[in-house]
Amino acid sequence: VVPSEFELIDRFVAEFPRVGASVRLGPGDDCAIVRADGELCVTTDQIVEDRHFTRAFSPEDIGHKALAVNLSDLAAMGARPSWFLCAIAMPRGTDPRTLRRIARGMAALAREARISLAGGNFTAARELSIAITAAGEVPRGAALRRDGGRAGDLLYVSGELGAARLGLERMLARGARPDRRQRRPTPRLALGLLARGFARAAIDLSDGLGQDLGHLCRRSKVGAEVRLFDLPVARAVRKAKGEGAAWFAAEGGEDYELLLAVPPGRAAAFERACRRAGEEVSCVGRLTRGAAIRLVDRSGHAAEPPRGHDHFG
Amino acid sequence: VVPSEFELIDRFVAEFPRVGASVRLGPGDDCAIVRADGELCVTTDQIVEDRHFTRAFSPEDIGHKALAVNLSDLAAMGARPSWFLCAIAMPRGTDPRTLRRIARGMAALAREARISLAGGNFTAARELSIAITAAGEVPRGAALRRDGGRAGDLLYVSGELGAARLGLERMLARGARPDRRQRRPTPRLALGLLARGFARAAIDLSDGLGQDLGHLCRRSKVGAEVRLFDLPVARAVRKAKGEGAAWFAAEGGEDYELLLAVPPGRAAAFERACRRAGEEVSCVGRLTRGAAIRLVDRSGHAAEPPRGHDHFG
Repeated sequence: VVPSEFELIDRFVAEFPRVGASVRLGPGDDCAIVRADGELCVTTDQIVEDRHFTRAFSPEDIGHKALAVNLSDLAAMGARPSWFLCAIAMPRGTDPRTLRRIARGMAALAREARISLAGGNFTAARELSIAITAAGEVPRGAALRRDGGRAGDLLYVSGELGAARLGLERMLARGARPDRRQRRPTPRLALGLLARGFARAAIDLSDGLGQDLGHLCRRSKVGAEVRLFDLPVARAVRKAKGEGAAWFAAEGGEDYELLLAVPPGRAAAFERACRRAGEEVSCVGRLTRGAAIRLVDRSGHAAEPPRGHDHFG
Repeated sequence: VVPSEFELIDRFVAEFPRVGASVRLGPGDDCAIVRADGELCVTTDQIVEDRHFTRAFSPEDIGHKALAVNLSDLAAMGARPSWFLCAIAMPRGTDPRTLRRIARGMAALAREARISLAGGNFTAARELSIAITAAGEVPRGAALRRDGGRAGDLLYVSGELGAARLGLERMLARGARPDRRQRRPTPRLALGLLARGFARAAIDLSDGLGQDLGHLCRRSKVGAEVRLFDLPVARAVRKAKGEGAAWFAAEGGEDYELLLAVPPGRAAAFERACRRAGEEVSCVGRLTRGAAIRLVDRSGHAAEPPRGHDHFG
């Protein structure tokens, strides 16, 4: 017996923890009702089969990733996760167990991030895709925007770069299992909240440092200088790419690390706070006057940033 | 020259009116920032090629419909439209002019409904789909939910039923141009706001009266009796279906009319308010004790409601 849409929805929802205080009415009505005071950061991001995941991903991976890419956007604003909506399009005849495993992967991350599933939608389609809308709370005026950077601010990158791109390359070239960094990106939510007290601007690295730094600079009307040799390049990337490793990492997408612009007067306190909180950050350069973005190597040579990963076209 | 994702986004966004006061930060950052006081109704609904629209729809129709189905959910809660997010998945090589025409159809309805585009996402996919998340404001505790109905409440339906289903049938059977009701559903926003002062429960008719009434009854823990001969059946449906017209209409999906449960003591005032506002509503039955849903014909015969339109399976 094929379960109806409504049974599938009930089973999907049952995998999630009970909704938190921000959700007054959860799944099952025309709309969810959420409580809201002050400002909300809201974002929508979609993952599509053969583009953001493949059959080599487990259903749990897919559920995790669909939510993680949205949480990463909340992290980049310094927002505290509150609620999300989930729209799933899938081929008719998708195994209900697959759907349940997607829910489990998503629910595990939702529990960790303390975000409530407020509602969603199922529809039939030729390929599997998941579009999530996530909302997070910020005190009024406190969100980390892309346009807050000023010349002189120091640039920090969290974690390590390049592993997701290397994993993708290996998967495409020789059918290797996708790297954990591609399958299970870690949204830097705690770092985003911490950084709200120090940084003036932030963006998450989904399209590659080269491209995302460009977005931040354009919106802040500044340039930037990045020291390639100070980029926190993943060890596997260093090993595989040798001298080209930093460039490869700067071009890589799907790292889901944060890029933060911190005023120099706050930098020491920011670094101390990160150490205390166990958040790994590296100072990689600074914002400059003008519009030029320069990636500098040890010999002092500068280059334009790589174009990075384009989501469309 | 193929425009980049970022150029496409800029052009898409440019078709929309400037964001309203509810949006503090619009498209272009990791998240949008929205102002919120009290309660928000939020919903997500997705339309997919060859399921909710076909090549016989104009791009403007597609843009309209993607937003309309979400606004209909806001209408059913009695919420005032505030902001929305739009995630579009489309085949590589989609003509940028098509995208712009989708934006225009969507923007025309957004302007009419006074809702602001707060942000969105583009991604490549094998087929075209649009997932929208819409938010609307309601005073605390004032939303029209599915679970507020009580035995004795009178059931009202807005507008007319069945035309969208008839259009679909004709399109599938003989390649007729899709009916306007399928291409350009009208969300009953003004009626939803008006009904907030009178109705105890509401739902929008997307899956057919038979099925949607069932949702309302289950959530309200009541039954219902509907007079088939009082259903507001579209004239074209009466003509095409004769004696079976009411049954056909009760089974039809995609009407996007509202079904409202109004306490008998408020019914006369509700009808007067609708007349004054030019909102067409028909009293079609009432909620009853128990769980049975009965559709009654002129001779007094009762039948179980049709199963209606299942979105998945």
